[in-house]
Amino acid sequence: MTVSDLGEHALLARLLARLPRPGAHILVGPGDDAAVIEPGRRTRLVVTTDALVEHVHFSRAWCSPADIGHKALAVNLSDLAAMGAVPRWALVSLALPPDLDVDAAEALMSGLAEHARSHGVSVAGGNLTRSPQGLVVDITAGGEVSPRKWLLRSGGRPGDDLWVSGTLGGARAGLEMFESGRNPDGDAGSEACGLRHRRPAPRVRLGIALARAGAARAAMDLSDGLADAVRQLATASGCGARVNADSVPVEPGARAWWTSTGRESVLEAIRGGEDYELLFAVPPRWSGRLRHVRQQVAEPDLTRIGVLTRPRDLVLTRKGRDEAWPSGFEHFRAGDARD
Amino acid sequence: MTVSDLGEHALLARLLARLPRPGAHILVGPGDDAAVIEPGRRTRLVVTTDALVEHVHFSRAWCSPADIGHKALAVNLSDLAAMGAVPRWALVSLALPPDLDVDAAEALMSGLAEHARSHGVSVAGGNLTRSPQGLVVDITAGGEVSPRKWLLRSGGRPGDDLWVSGTLGGARAGLEMFESGRNPDGDAGSEACGLRHRRPAPRVRLGIALARAGAARAAMDLSDGLADAVRQLATASGCGARVNADSVPVEPGARAWWTSTGRESVLEAIRGGEDYELLFAVPPRWSGRLRHVRQQVAEPDLTRIGVLTRPRDLVLTRKGRDEAWPSGFEHFRAGDARD
Repeated sequence: MTVSDLGEHALLARLLARLPRPGAHILVGPGDDAAVIEPGRRTRLVVTTDALVEHVHFSRAWCSPADIGHKALAVNLSDLAAMGAVPRWALVSLALPPDLDVDAAEALMSGLAEHARSHGVSVAGGNLTRSPQGLVVDITAGGEVSPRKWLLRSGGRPGDDLWVSGTLGGARAGLEMFESGRNPDGDAGSEACGLRHRRPAPRVRLGIALARAGAARAAMDLSDGLADAVRQLATASGCGARVNADSVPVEPGARAWWTSTGRESVLEAIRGGEDYELLFAVPPRWSGRLRHVRQQVAEPDLTRIGVLTRPRDLVLTRKGRDEAWPSGFEHFRAGDARD
Repeated sequence: MTVSDLGEHALLARLLARLPRPGAHILVGPGDDAAVIEPGRRTRLVVTTDALVEHVHFSRAWCSPADIGHKALAVNLSDLAAMGAVPRWALVSLALPPDLDVDAAEALMSGLAEHARSHGVSVAGGNLTRSPQGLVVDITAGGEVSPRKWLLRSGGRPGDDLWVSGTLGGARAGLEMFESGRNPDGDAGSEACGLRHRRPAPRVRLGIALARAGAARAAMDLSDGLADAVRQLATASGCGARVNADSVPVEPGARAWWTSTGRESVLEAIRGGEDYELLFAVPPRWSGRLRHVRQQVAEPDLTRIGVLTRPRDLVLTRKGRDEAWPSGFEHFRAGDARD
């Protein structure tokens, strides 16, 4: 049965049934003209919005409906994490093609609900409409941060070390495997890459810990790759940057994939895209605070990859030599900019 | 020049330049991973999201880009008004076809910005992406309301009078005129209908005044027409309703349009759709509070159209006789349900 056969009211009821009961801070949840939310005491509101558009950000050929629901929320939680905010609620706006199976719509909502539950996020409301062509999942996520504790891109200063979380390149390699017709579920390394593309894990606990400990002077997430993120953070901070390519942590399955196709894996990983790891700037004398964060948040690993510099140019060093700065990854998101 | 020719970063800069400077409560505005907002003291957060999808909710054949920007914000402010909330900020998510003219994108943002300014709303952030086909404007609006002062659909009780603001049917008649190829700008009455479709005026001041004065026990907006709204408010309140069709205020140009095409104008106006007026329930003994609201908010007129009843059926009386309840208007929004 398609969503068009079922009709709007019955579909809405089925989708709402997939959601966990909203938290006590949701004073009015789905079903009225708007949601009403009890803010935390003495907190500031942090809000972000990000959309996944079919044929632009995902293909249903290799992303299941549950993957799409998961990822649509994850990319928003990643933005909140990059601000150091505790995620609290989301509004889910769905534009569905009329011929979409009801089962697929329900599975999408289940994938989203499961991810929301795992981060203590309540779906407070949303909107449901027809899309003439292609599925659009547009989410707004809201969170909270203590006064003056939020992390900006612009806070970095010359001499701050640049750190990244986790490993890079996996999501992009996974997408390339899908696009090339190779099923990345064949071996563990490739499967990890496929998962990085389909089910990104936003670094929510890390972002919160960095902000609470005052351990980072600037931060942003790697939605458009490390090369793009370093450029943006350095520019916003009025700095340049020097990054040591040899220290960049490349996802093992991505390294194997790019090596097998004759490409420089570290450069591909730096161009990256959709890793949803965090890049952050830490003055060397704050190392005690960063150690505290690492004790609290064991996963993922954190790696020092470079430093912010007074000269405003961007320099990549590799095997002891300076190289041109790699361009950011815009292949599958031309025309896509996000706040 | 198209948005695709210009590229994402340059387009974003041009669109942001159209926005008024954010208010002082926007601690971090567009340009970082998320926005940070200072909540009002002792207020509750009210949030809603609503999307306009090309070929579903509007046609560029008769809606200018500025109309689309205006309306996309207006339908969200209407939802906040229906909760009695003071609108404060919006996040604007745009999915743009690659062949859209940059001028059109800028005009859309200007129309939105002008409407935002007129209601003291700051655009705190957003998202920009490609749309393979058709323009999508998805907005999340946030506002504030005092504790326990918000207006729900479910607060009505048997014996409460039902009131509507303004006149009904104009937006639907205007859309019909456009669809039939008639230019509604030919005479004043028709022009008013065209404007109701293209540039709805959300009843922000009325909603706030009703909530502050404690003058309404339940409220919602008429996005899907009066017939649908009465059904929803009565059902949510566990009541039925009796509406006197002869007292329903029909937009004069709509009355003329439907009369000229041989239809019962009051029934068409009750089915309506997109009027964005408010329906609200007031116990007769609260008439003093309602008078106070009318002194504060002179426009639009308020009209008593019926009453909530203990029996749960919906009854329309017309010329002294009971009639079947008219079906809601879903012609151009099949598959569209909104919270």
